[in-house]
Amino acid sequence: MKKYDVIIIGGGPSGIITGVTGKKQNPEKSFLMIKKEEKGLVPCGIPYIFHDLKDVSQNTMGPKPFIDTGGDVLIDEVTDIDINKKTLTTKKTEMFQYNKLVFATGSTPSIPTFIKGYDLEGVEYIKKSYDYIDKLKIKTDVSRNIVVIGGGFIGVEVAEQLAKFKDKNVSLVEMEKFCLYRAFSKEVAEKANEVINKTNINLFTNNKINEIIGENGKVKSVKLARGEELKADIVISAIGYKPNTELAQKAGLELNSNGAIRCDNYLRTIEKDIFAVGDCSQTIGFVTGRTDSIMLASTATAEARILGYNLFGIKLLRNFVGTLSVFSTEIGGTVFASAGAIEQSAKYENIEYVAGKFTDVDRHPCTIEDTKELMVKLIVSPRTGTIIGGEMYGGKSVGELINVVGLAIQKEVTVYELISFQIGTHPLLTTAPTKYVLIKAAEIAIAQMNK
Amino acid sequence: MKKYDVIIIGGGPSGIITGVTGKKQNPEKSFLMIKKEEKGLVPCGIPYIFHDLKDVSQNTMGPKPFIDTGGDVLIDEVTDIDINKKTLTTKKTEMFQYNKLVFATGSTPSIPTFIKGYDLEGVEYIKKSYDYIDKLKIKTDVSRNIVVIGGGFIGVEVAEQLAKFKDKNVSLVEMEKFCLYRAFSKEVAEKANEVINKTNINLFTNNKINEIIGENGKVKSVKLARGEELKADIVISAIGYKPNTELAQKAGLELNSNGAIRCDNYLRTIEKDIFAVGDCSQTIGFVTGRTDSIMLASTATAEARILGYNLFGIKLLRNFVGTLSVFSTEIGGTVFASAGAIEQSAKYENIEYVAGKFTDVDRHPCTIEDTKELMVKLIVSPRTGTIIGGEMYGGKSVGELINVVGLAIQKEVTVYELISFQIGTHPLLTTAPTKYVLIKAAEIAIAQMNK
Repeated sequence: MKKYDVIIIGGGPSGIITGVTGKKQNPEKSFLMIKKEEKGLVPCGIPYIFHDLKDVSQNTMGPKPFIDTGGDVLIDEVTDIDINKKTLTTKKTEMFQYNKLVFATGSTPSIPTFIKGYDLEGVEYIKKSYDYIDKLKIKTDVSRNIVVIGGGFIGVEVAEQLAKFKDKNVSLVEMEKFCLYRAFSKEVAEKANEVINKTNINLFTNNKINEIIGENGKVKSVKLARGEELKADIVISAIGYKPNTELAQKAGLELNSNGAIRCDNYLRTIEKDIFAVGDCSQTIGFVTGRTDSIMLASTATAEARILGYNLFGIKLLRNFVGTLSVFSTEIGGTVFASAGAIEQSAKYENIEYVAGKFTDVDRHPCTIEDTKELMVKLIVSPRTGTIIGGEMYGGKSVGELINVVGLAIQKEVTVYELISFQIGTHPLLTTAPTKYVLIKAAEIAIAQMNK
Repeated sequence: MKKYDVIIIGGGPSGIITGVTGKKQNPEKSFLMIKKEEKGLVPCGIPYIFHDLKDVSQNTMGPKPFIDTGGDVLIDEVTDIDINKKTLTTKKTEMFQYNKLVFATGSTPSIPTFIKGYDLEGVEYIKKSYDYIDKLKIKTDVSRNIVVIGGGFIGVEVAEQLAKFKDKNVSLVEMEKFCLYRAFSKEVAEKANEVINKTNINLFTNNKINEIIGENGKVKSVKLARGEELKADIVISAIGYKPNTELAQKAGLELNSNGAIRCDNYLRTIEKDIFAVGDCSQTIGFVTGRTDSIMLASTATAEARILGYNLFGIKLLRNFVGTLSVFSTEIGGTVFASAGAIEQSAKYENIEYVAGKFTDVDRHPCTIEDTKELMVKLIVSPRTGTIIGGEMYGGKSVGELINVVGLAIQKEVTVYELISFQIGTHPLLTTAPTKYVLIKAAEIAIAQMNK
């Protein structure tokens, strides 16, 4: 039986970063990563395989950085874990002894079992599997009528990419009145809908799929709740993901109500020497301290860095509890992003807030060639002025501007501080210093607080 | 004699923002702005008038936002101030009584009196004056041979714009070995030189102008210290700016060694009820606490917001002392930015530091169409891990990414905190979460600290 100091189950972003960071910190320890497939994918790059990147091979991410630090990789699947003996068995019937065990098993697409016909041939998912997506790409290439279920980030991005093929008839069906409604307030989600409607996508919001209709066991069309029937050669379900925790449960680890592995601020499960990181591990809302279910490669890698440093003892303090969700995407040339609380989540959680909103342009003067409209809205706790959330849309610079807001939330920056902070501005790159949109939004929040 | 609660001298960014903020906070008070010229310019947009914006009229900034809040504007020039009587006189011999007086008189180009021939016709400056730049634009349009003196931001930007006209012969002369050497470390400045050399500019670094040679009182050529003689129809001197404080000095205000008006953390001069804001007021280094001379519209407007809130009493605390310089520019399609300390300034100020540097790309996977190389270097105080500076080059997103670093410096974020922070990433917008360049630079700084 082979022995390793650390065994990591899973080779996605959290597995790789745990391995790289952990091995760098502990070069004398032996590390093994066990992953199912040889090739891996950049998770958030998957939608772009369907058009911009042209091919699955353009979106790969493998354990090379981990191997470069001296880690071993085994392509296999863990089938059993004996927590008491600290051993595990794989499909190829190898047995390993571990000192520390890391679950980085990720998540799998939720199956819409509530829709009749969900099990027909031609109902597909955005699985984080190289081989699966490779095949799906070939299928979408030859399909003319494609229906995407779910207007969250993945659904919108996949639909947007597929709709770039002018000869395809791509429909997107979303239950809520707006797409991306979990990440954005009504106002910004409305803007997202507007942008989606300008693409080649047929958007059906405030609607849902009653039935997927088949012929000879194969998808033929979908029937919507409000009566429409849409032809479909293929249906892509993008209604969300669930933590991949069957193995953890079988091993006796505790799961939370979302099916994620319970763990503490240092990713330690209830079992000594067993950790869970990334999509399979629980998240706690940064503002609320309540269980939520954020599954992002960015938060997963932040956790993985903490875990990598702390595998053999807490060396790097984590000064905060909770996962801050920072989202961004680009639809039809407009970038949307949010961080932390949004208005409807603040209301739902009964958090007192004011919103400060400002719109201008992202270059100055506005006569600069690639100028785009930029909107920033800040969500602020009115007693202290602490920034607890923000959302925005604009050009590509929004991809990093949201990280200014994210850092502000994590460092509990107040709007009072923000308006006296010094920012860098440049005509070709940012808003004017006189009306830097983020700072104007803070000023407006202050005015709201003093009302 | 007309009476005003607040009189602001100057209508640049700091004057406008002081007026707008102050009037909004104190709608019952009367505000007057006295400015010399009817039309104003966006200061940092001036270089782009010479090519991209095509015309001076595309780069205007006026006091309209101030007028909209109810402020009065007078086009005139203040000639005398009686501090005891709290009155001032203008060129058109009007006399005003003020309660609060704000100097927002900005800065003027330094004159290279040390160069023989500096007073010849055809030696021009980048003055922040609409009428002057309007005329200069016409002159550059008809000039074939143009020599720019000084490879700081303004010099580089003006030369880059002029060199976009393929039929012009544009030379840039810089004393130091690299352009932008005050804002960037050797390594990044080298990269800037490389980028400049790929443009149509003839770059002469490590060189200087010994003489500007004239014919009939008009510029004909320039003679460089290392022997070259460059034909010149026009010479643009961009060797820096000095605070415009003659009037303040005449009125009896105290100036510092750089000629800037001395004032405290709330922009109050030694005279009760007199304030100084923007380029004409002193700055204190954020990290060092020493007098320096940062003149940026971005820092000026940050000061102006603080002053606007606090004109009639300290309502908004300024929790920090000092001005953080955040610079950014784009040269030949590559963006360069820095914030706070750089290696040579840290050395000069005898500040213990380590540098953490990482280079990757600004999209992920790197197969995304508009991917550019992205380098981030962090300057870190090794005892605590506090970030005291950063610099970077890459694509346009650097314009906002530098503001993440700027906020981190202002909030005294440590590299330990940074590596566990959650950032937003997206294939089309940022680096991969697994190697988000800013966080990798922090990791490398930690490794340096532990050496």
